[in-house]
Amino acid sequence: MNVLFIMADQLRWDHLGCTGHPWLKTPHIDALARRGVRFANAFVNSGVCGPSRMSYYTGRYPITHGATWNRVPLSVGELTLGEMLRGAGLSLALAGKSHVMPDHEGLQRLRLEGGSELATLLARGGFEEIDRYDGHHTPGAETGYPAFLRARGYDSADPWSDYVISGLDAQGRPASGWHMRHVHLPARVREEHSETAYMTDQAIAYTRRMAGRPWVLHLSYVKPHWPYMAPAPYHAMYTADECLPVVRSARELDNQHPVLAAYRQQEECLSFQQDDCIRTVRPAYQGLISQLDHHLGRLFEHLDATGQLADTLVIFTADHGDFLGDHWLGEKELFYDTVQKVPFIVADPRPQADATRGTVEQRFVESVDLVPTVLDALGIAAPTQWIEGRSLMPLLRGETATDWRAFTYSELDYSYRQARQILGKHVQQCRAFSLRTERWRYVHWLDEPDQLFDLQADPQQFEDLGREAGTAALRAGLREQLLDFLARRKHRRTVSDAAVEKGTAAHKRAGVYFGQW
Amino acid sequence: MNVLFIMADQLRWDHLGCTGHPWLKTPHIDALARRGVRFANAFVNSGVCGPSRMSYYTGRYPITHGATWNRVPLSVGELTLGEMLRGAGLSLALAGKSHVMPDHEGLQRLRLEGGSELATLLARGGFEEIDRYDGHHTPGAETGYPAFLRARGYDSADPWSDYVISGLDAQGRPASGWHMRHVHLPARVREEHSETAYMTDQAIAYTRRMAGRPWVLHLSYVKPHWPYMAPAPYHAMYTADECLPVVRSARELDNQHPVLAAYRQQEECLSFQQDDCIRTVRPAYQGLISQLDHHLGRLFEHLDATGQLADTLVIFTADHGDFLGDHWLGEKELFYDTVQKVPFIVADPRPQADATRGTVEQRFVESVDLVPTVLDALGIAAPTQWIEGRSLMPLLRGETATDWRAFTYSELDYSYRQARQILGKHVQQCRAFSLRTERWRYVHWLDEPDQLFDLQADPQQFEDLGREAGTAALRAGLREQLLDFLARRKHRRTVSDAAVEKGTAAHKRAGVYFGQW
Repeated sequence: MNVLFIMADQLRWDHLGCTGHPWLKTPHIDALARRGVRFANAFVNSGVCGPSRMSYYTGRYPITHGATWNRVPLSVGELTLGEMLRGAGLSLALAGKSHVMPDHEGLQRLRLEGGSELATLLARGGFEEIDRYDGHHTPGAETGYPAFLRARGYDSADPWSDYVISGLDAQGRPASGWHMRHVHLPARVREEHSETAYMTDQAIAYTRRMAGRPWVLHLSYVKPHWPYMAPAPYHAMYTADECLPVVRSARELDNQHPVLAAYRQQEECLSFQQDDCIRTVRPAYQGLISQLDHHLGRLFEHLDATGQLADTLVIFTADHGDFLGDHWLGEKELFYDTVQKVPFIVADPRPQADATRGTVEQRFVESVDLVPTVLDALGIAAPTQWIEGRSLMPLLRGETATDWRAFTYSELDYSYRQARQILGKHVQQCRAFSLRTERWRYVHWLDEPDQLFDLQADPQQFEDLGREAGTAALRAGLREQLLDFLARRKHRRTVSDAAVEKGTAAHKRAGVYFGQW
Repeated sequence: MNVLFIMADQLRWDHLGCTGHPWLKTPHIDALARRGVRFANAFVNSGVCGPSRMSYYTGRYPITHGATWNRVPLSVGELTLGEMLRGAGLSLALAGKSHVMPDHEGLQRLRLEGGSELATLLARGGFEEIDRYDGHHTPGAETGYPAFLRARGYDSADPWSDYVISGLDAQGRPASGWHMRHVHLPARVREEHSETAYMTDQAIAYTRRMAGRPWVLHLSYVKPHWPYMAPAPYHAMYTADECLPVVRSARELDNQHPVLAAYRQQEECLSFQQDDCIRTVRPAYQGLISQLDHHLGRLFEHLDATGQLADTLVIFTADHGDFLGDHWLGEKELFYDTVQKVPFIVADPRPQADATRGTVEQRFVESVDLVPTVLDALGIAAPTQWIEGRSLMPLLRGETATDWRAFTYSELDYSYRQARQILGKHVQQCRAFSLRTERWRYVHWLDEPDQLFDLQADPQQFEDLGREAGTAALRAGLREQLLDFLARRKHRRTVSDAAVEKGTAAHKRAGVYFGQW
């Protein structure tokens, strides 16, 4: 049994054919959903790359794994999926982005700097890096992509900046995709040399090298994340009128929540508050998704042709969405389904999953479920004292009676954002904790008022009821649930549940006879 | 500047002369209080050795450091006072008990087993073990105590069991102190060879060896913790009528809280529900305290005679108290001031502390304050992303305007206790989280009703108001405070606050230009 765990970066849940987008074409992802289960209520545990991914890779919530934002290293003390797989004689290969920031200070403290195999594994978050490529930076030695580009004639010290994320303006001058006004232009890179094509090639080559041996591969695309520059023909595949209409209301700008008001002053939000920006970026964003879908089709075809598809569990998801101007916001992070809800498809080729094939599952699933699901699929015992998520295997097998979570949890640490400076806050003071039930989206901010949305009456989240006296009791009840949630995190991580069970009331066996009269 | 951090094991706050005990004599501890500040509201962060001590040694709450009960190893990922001192060229010496359980699994994962200096340091929780002696087990190779005893004629393979915790009954037969009915007998060990005497000798020898060099010593006595066997003359220093009266009420046994009802079925509680047991143990317990006081006098005299006392910050405290039959309970753990409140004296010989010398400070202090206080006293910068406590130096310097905490926090993990089995609970389900304000003691239990005591109307905590409808709003308010407390723990431990400050809104400096139109 192989596992192919595919992630798209910053891909909105509503930007797929199978989730109802009226214009966007994603035939191969749609076909994957028909071969497996599509989870219609899959949520990330933080709406930003770093913490969200660390939850995918550890099975633990950000408040537990501690990598609460993009620049925060994953502690060397945290156990990752890669290490769990190694314990079972497997490895976790990476092609693409992991966003793992090495915990140099922790490694130094443990004298684990210096390039031993263990130090390398820990610094990479447990991944065996086939080709590490985090995107949106000039790529360095961790990936073969710059050399690949130069070998194909992109003659530059930085072919990524000059070709991959740049176009040519009407005067034939390079126009960088870092300026969103340029992303209607085709990238200067040929489609077959683009980031998405390159990383798909890496994945195909890896599965070819592994033929006959079991593998677990994290294929982690850096698109459709910004810079939004798409290669031809995808840059022009959609018109602005073939994009989802922007979801925003003037009401949202009345009596704004202080943190949202601060976010809306950040550059990316100011840009996306302009219609021009929305109408320029959305078609390119959609083009990047159709391109990604095309390459997934190529990969699935390869796996099928080599007989591997029938032995491969495929998971397709994203680390969060993208506002693209919705709610007068750009980027991600905040507590709207737009960015917190993600595509999530699992296709298990085994007969036990036949009963659910092609169905849509409504129960809440979360990023933390990835690790226990992969372990369960491979028959590897999960270290329950670490893992906070749940295996999705019972849902894939149609065990409908399974008791399941009633809400999904997400959090945010905005201490690195300009919003903190605008609000004049200390770096330990910038946290939010959110619960989303079927009906409510509740956000508890440190030192700031609540947010609350009634998703039944107001599915678009235009009306923040968090500061209304009439919702006080409801919010108090949600805070009770949040307290219970935080109190149950896996704090006791150095001893297994089985060892606790075995060690209960065992003092006399250890030669300690206290309390005897 | 030296630091002498003295801990007594299981010493109740009300068992000292200076805290008002009418019969118990502790002249040297009382003198220490006159030389420094006595903190009248010092509380531990868990009422049991392991988690309480790990909070003293890391500056972090149990929910953060994760060593939630005695048998739970301190994660190799946690940073200890010993390591912080080493960063400044000092070491943290240990004479006596640390209760650090090595994180073998974590060390193995990091290939740090095998006895390197680093592995040894980590396995010992950052201590340089002069003589490690945790007590209440037959001592092994980690301490010189068995050899010391044998060299003095205690001829046995296990002189601790046969002499130190045993007496002789009326027929001249050994009678073990593991049976509390025997602890009116004098121990078979001579007073000058007892655990307390031996460890004081180790401390004196260490300060002699370190003469002229700065030192930080954790002198950690295993007494007055059980087995309660005291050597002559201390075994007979107090009569049962010279002990504090038992604090219990028949009302406490009506409509008991489920967890307390389960605890009260455990052997130590059943024993201490008998008057005989209380009247036998309390005099011996008091004798052990007077003995400890005597040896502290000897140590202070030595430091004074060698000129070190004037350069030594002395801290005296305990890891928790002992019910000794109060509330129909034995041992510790539960949320009564009897065990949660501890003696806490800090004597800073420097002139800056003259203003507070001999005073009693009423503000709440906690175990987590020890690490930042020691670092502050030595002028070492505290790693604020790790440390959850606060330096007491401003209080020692009489800075009365200092904004201070309004409550103290403690928690319990009772999954290893028989009470869990009695209640039929899963090992992840046995947690309690408590706040104590000036007026209220509130306990939030997972899956069990609240506890609430009004310490103003009911200072003895006889009346649990936690299941009364009339207190629902008050309890909800305390839960709000608890939620806020849990939400603010130091989860983001891999990056310093200063680095977050510096990295705020810094993406363009890193070559990332998102959000530009």
